[in-house]
Amino acid sequence: MASAGTQTKELENDNACCVQLCNPNIATLKEDVLYHFGLSTSTHDLPAMFGDVKFVCVGGSPSRMKGFIKYVAAELGLGHPGEDHPNICAGTDRYAMFKVGPVLSVSHGMGVPSIAIMLHELLKLLYHARCSGVTIIRIGTSGGIGLKPGSVVITRQAVDAYFKPEFEQVVLGKRVVRRTDLDERLVQELSECSADLREFTTVVGNTMCTLDFYEGQGRLDGALCCYTERDKQAYLQAAHAAGVRNIEMESSVFAAMCSACGLRAAVVCVTLLDRLEGDQICSPHEVLAEYQQRPQRLVGHFIKKCLAGA
Amino acid sequence: MASAGTQTKELENDNACCVQLCNPNIATLKEDVLYHFGLSTSTHDLPAMFGDVKFVCVGGSPSRMKGFIKYVAAELGLGHPGEDHPNICAGTDRYAMFKVGPVLSVSHGMGVPSIAIMLHELLKLLYHARCSGVTIIRIGTSGGIGLKPGSVVITRQAVDAYFKPEFEQVVLGKRVVRRTDLDERLVQELSECSADLREFTTVVGNTMCTLDFYEGQGRLDGALCCYTERDKQAYLQAAHAAGVRNIEMESSVFAAMCSACGLRAAVVCVTLLDRLEGDQICSPHEVLAEYQQRPQRLVGHFIKKCLAGA
Repeated sequence: MASAGTQTKELENDNACCVQLCNPNIATLKEDVLYHFGLSTSTHDLPAMFGDVKFVCVGGSPSRMKGFIKYVAAELGLGHPGEDHPNICAGTDRYAMFKVGPVLSVSHGMGVPSIAIMLHELLKLLYHARCSGVTIIRIGTSGGIGLKPGSVVITRQAVDAYFKPEFEQVVLGKRVVRRTDLDERLVQELSECSADLREFTTVVGNTMCTLDFYEGQGRLDGALCCYTERDKQAYLQAAHAAGVRNIEMESSVFAAMCSACGLRAAVVCVTLLDRLEGDQICSPHEVLAEYQQRPQRLVGHFIKKCLAGA
Repeated sequence: MASAGTQTKELENDNACCVQLCNPNIATLKEDVLYHFGLSTSTHDLPAMFGDVKFVCVGGSPSRMKGFIKYVAAELGLGHPGEDHPNICAGTDRYAMFKVGPVLSVSHGMGVPSIAIMLHELLKLLYHARCSGVTIIRIGTSGGIGLKPGSVVITRQAVDAYFKPEFEQVVLGKRVVRRTDLDERLVQELSECSADLREFTTVVGNTMCTLDFYEGQGRLDGALCCYTERDKQAYLQAAHAAGVRNIEMESSVFAAMCSACGLRAAVVCVTLLDRLEGDQICSPHEVLAEYQQRPQRLVGHFIKKCLAGA
């Protein structure tokens, strides 16, 4: 049995790594409706449902996040083979959420606003559920710069379309700029997991987060385009020189919000194409499907390793 | 039988209102993969599938857009009662698309980046299908300012978080600002349809489009919040004074892109709450469900009236 001193220390450690909100109002709310999840503190026992969550994995597509929970359940030997994992957010079609043991898998749609709504409600959910020591990882798809398609990028820094490690938003009509720090040690740990697996190329690099998939990423094949192939190549080469290895649409706000609330956060994305070679994603469906499993395999291995060492 | 002169004139009229892209590259592509729709010019006969489309309705939620096609099919007397309307984008879970007669219904997820990806691919789809005379209407949900919940707002101007009728994006590392014009006559026609129906309050007003649902709209109940109720009220009152009657997250890029490509475009959103009174959406599910049908009823009536007068 632990001594009183040890217990106090454990409690302190536990409190120290609790999910913290940057909003004093939430503690005073009588009810908190997590509208886009279809959950509420008055209708759902959030501590009972989510109190044991230690790993949250998020990604754009609901079916991919369902596939991930199935994969992780099998990897961790949790649940029965062939078991169905019900969508916890079945009351809404905005997001999908699945859970097995300490792992929560949530979809976030595409783009900064869509993932931001999800993160506001997810962070409040983890707070209401009194979760502690949570690691959150975005597992996604991206366009690579100078990488063979199918390569996996672990994000060192999330940068904006000017290659700056900043996330800018407008709050009450004023520009607010936040840092986009990610956990350095987590980058290292994930990198080691990839070395354990030896299944695919993995690099650590900067990830550019844009607000648009076509013009915002210099594509020549959108409905609107007022620049040339040469302009595009110059921009992508400048991004590469700034350390950018892939481009996606959620990492900056993900990094900003998770670090503000004290979560250890990482971004692991596979590249579906090399943007220096083209704009369209033309690989066969089964090739793309296998690429999309790579971040899942990497993160699945990471979770297994963490739990084995716990 | 029409004379050659009449035929030429009809052809000219038809070409004049064809969907035009602002990108010369598309006409030279051998294949165009509309990746997020799971459609391609080489695997799908887009003119045969979509050539007769005259009305496109878009909204955030896939299930709501499925409900809309069912409603419109019944209203227009198309298809058989109880008929299932298959999702044309069944190969992907990014967006859902349904069609009945000249009406296309497409989901766009939440936020500017998500709707922008959809619009790039939708505009290219309409172009490849050689559609002409297309009207596009976003039917959505929003937060009202100074309006009774359940009121419907037809957007006069889409404005940004500084109340300016502009849409700003970053293209190749440079800020580009586009106008957010909507079709004035269409606003008038939709307004008349609401007067025909007399079922709910409808106003014409400006719509503020933000990149965030919580801090970006001055909510006090997000995971992050560093301002007071008083600051929030001052911001919303300033918005009201600038003619803003509701707040949502897609109208500015929708207006900018559709007007650039020559589509008659409108935004019709119901307000789920009055933001001067609170931030949380707490109304019972069935009340919210009825509210969400209001833009559908208005736009369904509009389409019926257009087709009757055609």
